[in-house]
Amino acid sequence: MRIIAVDPFYLRMPTITDAADGQQDTILVRVRTDAGIEGWGESDASPLVSMAAYCCPMSHGNIINIRQSLLGESINSPDDVVRLHAKALRNGLDIQQIHHAYSAADIALWDIVGKKAGVPVYRLLSDGRSHAKLPYASVLFGDTPEETRLRAMVLRDRGFQAAKFGWGPMGKHGEENDIALVQAAREGMGDDAQVMIDAGVVWGEDAATAYRRSVAFREFRPTWLEEPLRPDAIDAYADLAAMNPPVPIAAGEGAGNLRQAQDIISNGRVQYCQIDVGRIGGVTPAYRVRTLAEDTGIVYVNHTYKSHLSVAASLHVFATNPDFRLAEYPAAESPLSANVASRVERGADGLIRAPEQPGIGVTVDLDVVRQYYVPVRIEAGGDVLGFGSPDS
Amino acid sequence: MRIIAVDPFYLRMPTITDAADGQQDTILVRVRTDAGIEGWGESDASPLVSMAAYCCPMSHGNIINIRQSLLGESINSPDDVVRLHAKALRNGLDIQQIHHAYSAADIALWDIVGKKAGVPVYRLLSDGRSHAKLPYASVLFGDTPEETRLRAMVLRDRGFQAAKFGWGPMGKHGEENDIALVQAAREGMGDDAQVMIDAGVVWGEDAATAYRRSVAFREFRPTWLEEPLRPDAIDAYADLAAMNPPVPIAAGEGAGNLRQAQDIISNGRVQYCQIDVGRIGGVTPAYRVRTLAEDTGIVYVNHTYKSHLSVAASLHVFATNPDFRLAEYPAAESPLSANVASRVERGADGLIRAPEQPGIGVTVDLDVVRQYYVPVRIEAGGDVLGFGSPDS
Repeated sequence: MRIIAVDPFYLRMPTITDAADGQQDTILVRVRTDAGIEGWGESDASPLVSMAAYCCPMSHGNIINIRQSLLGESINSPDDVVRLHAKALRNGLDIQQIHHAYSAADIALWDIVGKKAGVPVYRLLSDGRSHAKLPYASVLFGDTPEETRLRAMVLRDRGFQAAKFGWGPMGKHGEENDIALVQAAREGMGDDAQVMIDAGVVWGEDAATAYRRSVAFREFRPTWLEEPLRPDAIDAYADLAAMNPPVPIAAGEGAGNLRQAQDIISNGRVQYCQIDVGRIGGVTPAYRVRTLAEDTGIVYVNHTYKSHLSVAASLHVFATNPDFRLAEYPAAESPLSANVASRVERGADGLIRAPEQPGIGVTVDLDVVRQYYVPVRIEAGGDVLGFGSPDS
Repeated sequence: MRIIAVDPFYLRMPTITDAADGQQDTILVRVRTDAGIEGWGESDASPLVSMAAYCCPMSHGNIINIRQSLLGESINSPDDVVRLHAKALRNGLDIQQIHHAYSAADIALWDIVGKKAGVPVYRLLSDGRSHAKLPYASVLFGDTPEETRLRAMVLRDRGFQAAKFGWGPMGKHGEENDIALVQAAREGMGDDAQVMIDAGVVWGEDAATAYRRSVAFREFRPTWLEEPLRPDAIDAYADLAAMNPPVPIAAGEGAGNLRQAQDIISNGRVQYCQIDVGRIGGVTPAYRVRTLAEDTGIVYVNHTYKSHLSVAASLHVFATNPDFRLAEYPAAESPLSANVASRVERGADGLIRAPEQPGIGVTVDLDVVRQYYVPVRIEAGGDVLGFGSPDS
């Protein structure tokens, strides 16, 4: 098969706020082949900046856009997916956005080769059967402890045995309020649930404050304290690790390429590494991080705050490892992210599983794509650098 | 003063090839204040992808474009430049391109505060007088050893006492040809010159081959072997360092943020760290790398393959350190990069110095901007996300 079209689509809700809610818009990429098989992927990234990486004019041999790297290429096997990943990154060596942007294409290519082979992507990645994951409901903190408690109670009523609360007021109104937020999350979820806390990079490089909070939060038994520091503050993460915080530290969603994941694992010494397949460059490098986590003895977790296309792609990466048991699962979705792809629903046991259908195993709903579609037109020097529409 | 306009301009030559020649196009950014002082900066990055980072619609609180972060802000002192750097990066936490794109804005803001204070930027960065640098002529290898020899002889005739040859055929036709290329560069430059070899990331993660080449090149006494490996192959750089190669290793131009520079210094253990102010996020983080190099005992060098706006901005970063004596100096320029800004010429002693005029100290030639200007029009959802023209 050959690649005959690579089309990114910018979708967004009618209103966008500055909340740390990545479900307000998205970029999907559709890759088509001459055999009629098409694949879909999603990046967790700025849609417009990523689209520019698909169509930017060549600057020189190290700035060649993604579409040009892929069009006309043969795509038949996992080896082709890995080869094209390397090619696109090499051609885009000096496009900083390349990993964010390429993530959706890489997922779409895995979708294609899975469909061609008639097997789910996880079976192309490794031997072994798929293991169910415990989905932790991922939501933002309420603006107050009381709102957070109510949010947690709703999740508990919805049957979630684990939930993560993040961003919003955390770290912005002093230690007492931070503790009250964590306490409210724990009380709302009940004693038996797993509760995770996501500090949303709020303490920057301040490892001492991050450590103090981990001590203060300990009595509420959070599974982890996530991103207390900026993703690039690796030395501060190392300092924090050296203090032996009583709550495990999680990070990694900021990893925009394989090296950044290696760096936060090896030098930042986190205990949970959270990888977003929509940022690190897709399933291909995410699977390498899974392997690194296995070799290092830490826990791999997906980071996912987009549609179930991303949920499914994420699950394939670590489905076959029974020890990596937790999976992030968006639980306060926008109509866009909730409906644009078919869903990875929880089973009767409350667990989720990588889809068994061929490829990534979810179906994109073109009606929903049309509903939230943002037409983008980019002209440079009189040339229209555009893409196909959902209906082309 | 307040910032009233932030306008990126895409400039390019009529013909673009896939040679590793970054002088075929550029992005300049002009920042204007309500006091009438304007500043200019340049990124070494994809113009279109970077422009998208200046105007992309907000996705959420971590994807807010650079223009929105800057417009209306007060800018009076170096503290403001540092504050705005942090603000733009925080607002663009999930825009991977942010550092490449923001580099030009940061340089423009230093230009503004230098002009306001009436002093060159290097005096705002640190105490101490400016020291002259030995410019090494930076060119690509010729396609053959003989072409490389001729290229070197021309540079020697032009009075260069140091020259770097890179990319092109290096690493692509076997060890014998690689050695012939280095021998030709040395012979063309003569015994007394400094010769640097830039392998242009050609050996990927293959530290063993990089080591073998360093042994083979040793007799030609190159000052360094640059980027034998991919910028993200930090473990391979560490392996190479552990083998004690007989030629010092240089790298760092791939550093798209401060952490990547820390990583290649601390973990990759390079001996020369080459920072591009047009990629790492501007003068602000580049100066922090200079300080890190001083603390670590390695050598800071600029990476510059754009106009003299970038040459000048680069020199301010390390002008006051007499031990960092080498400076990259583009020597095979396109008409665009040669003429768009006033020049940092070599003195009678063959050395170059940071400009003494206020700010960055070079003047952008608007006629040249107009000549190579590529109009860009970006529409998303019916909104035109455009910028001012050179004449607005």
